[in-house]
Amino acid sequence: MSQPTVHICLSPALYPMYHSNERIVVIVDILRATSAICTALQHGMKSVIPVATIDQANQFVGDDYIIAAERGGEIVNGFAYGNSPLAYINNPQTFGKHLVLTTTNGTQAIETARLSQTLVIGSFCNISALTQWIVKRNQDVMILCAGWKNRINLEDTIFAGALLDSLLRQGFSMDIDTDAGITALSLFRLSEADIKAFLKQSSHNQRLSRLNLDEDITYCLTRNTTPIVPILQQERLVIST
Amino acid sequence: MSQPTVHICLSPALYPMYHSNERIVVIVDILRATSAICTALQHGMKSVIPVATIDQANQFVGDDYIIAAERGGEIVNGFAYGNSPLAYINNPQTFGKHLVLTTTNGTQAIETARLSQTLVIGSFCNISALTQWIVKRNQDVMILCAGWKNRINLEDTIFAGALLDSLLRQGFSMDIDTDAGITALSLFRLSEADIKAFLKQSSHNQRLSRLNLDEDITYCLTRNTTPIVPILQQERLVIST
Repeated sequence: MSQPTVHICLSPALYPMYHSNERIVVIVDILRATSAICTALQHGMKSVIPVATIDQANQFVGDDYIIAAERGGEIVNGFAYGNSPLAYINNPQTFGKHLVLTTTNGTQAIETARLSQTLVIGSFCNISALTQWIVKRNQDVMILCAGWKNRINLEDTIFAGALLDSLLRQGFSMDIDTDAGITALSLFRLSEADIKAFLKQSSHNQRLSRLNLDEDITYCLTRNTTPIVPILQQERLVIST
Repeated sequence: MSQPTVHICLSPALYPMYHSNERIVVIVDILRATSAICTALQHGMKSVIPVATIDQANQFVGDDYIIAAERGGEIVNGFAYGNSPLAYINNPQTFGKHLVLTTTNGTQAIETARLSQTLVIGSFCNISALTQWIVKRNQDVMILCAGWKNRINLEDTIFAGALLDSLLRQGFSMDIDTDAGITALSLFRLSEADIKAFLKQSSHNQRLSRLNLDEDITYCLTRNTTPIVPILQQERLVIST
């Protein structure tokens, strides 16, 4: 059998050109939705329910749900939670509950790919676990970068390069029908020694520097803080078994 | 007055997110349409008429026209010319005529942006002349990479980085609302010492290696073989004055 192939889609706007039912879809929104999803499930939340709009989020009523809404990097007015992963670490308020989450980019990317057969969540928090999980499946993969409002961003592209690098070491091959793979891999290798310093030049950093996200960014770039892989099942993200 | 800004759009599929009438659009299809357009005009062709389809190309009848059609890297059956720039160098058959050109990616990118106020053609062949031309205009710029069938490719991205680098040195600033600029600039700097060697890993190279384009590729990566800037006027590309 030939080796499975890793495809990289650098923006949800390009998704229709990459879609194939045979491929596992890995959603990536490093700063910060997919890092937060991994963290929330790692820290005892029962599921994460990604929704596209704030109206949809507000339909989940009751003590079982924590509603988190972020737009433009900030918690939406009237909500207590946004997409900061730190909010879900060792938090008795959120433990055991379902997280209803709507964000600027991450949950929109999930929405774009929600009909795919297998959709999982990737971040530096779970990169090793995710690699192993994909290797066991032995299937083609599409890494879907959420970007920023359908534009390409640096941190998601670098993570795509890191995951591609990790899968290449496990015998996967790279899609050569496009140059997205070599682009992501090049940026990863260029930044690998100090991704945080490299990101200082990124649009996200410049856009959000006033929000003091330094601690969040450090956390989101730390590898392997969790061994779990979130997977979409019946419209909810749960820990894959 | 603030410095003009350089925006980079890495695929025609992302064009609607970058479009603005205030911006000069630079079309880039290094291998090989935009290199061929610069070369044809440099070598005495009167104009280049970019058309989207082969049917449209065939509507130009008579001795004044040379019709060139490329799909998938090869000259379309029944045509004498494709997108190889070498075909137009010191060629008495093409001198003084109009080139009607349809290609897989380059002329499609022109089609995408054809309603923009100012559309010019960029390639390594005219990078210095183009830089000076843009500097004189002192306007915001969008570099539109043709890519490969709406997917991102390496050679157009690297050229976008090279032109951005060149404009930054002239006091232009980089769009920081997206990371396409820093991505292109990183790839350019990574490959600058030997772009041809770097491209050996590209999809285009792997896709087209059977076509023996080595001489074409060397030519298309050579800087400043022409001082002209092709500009779209009344649906024809002519030398800008």
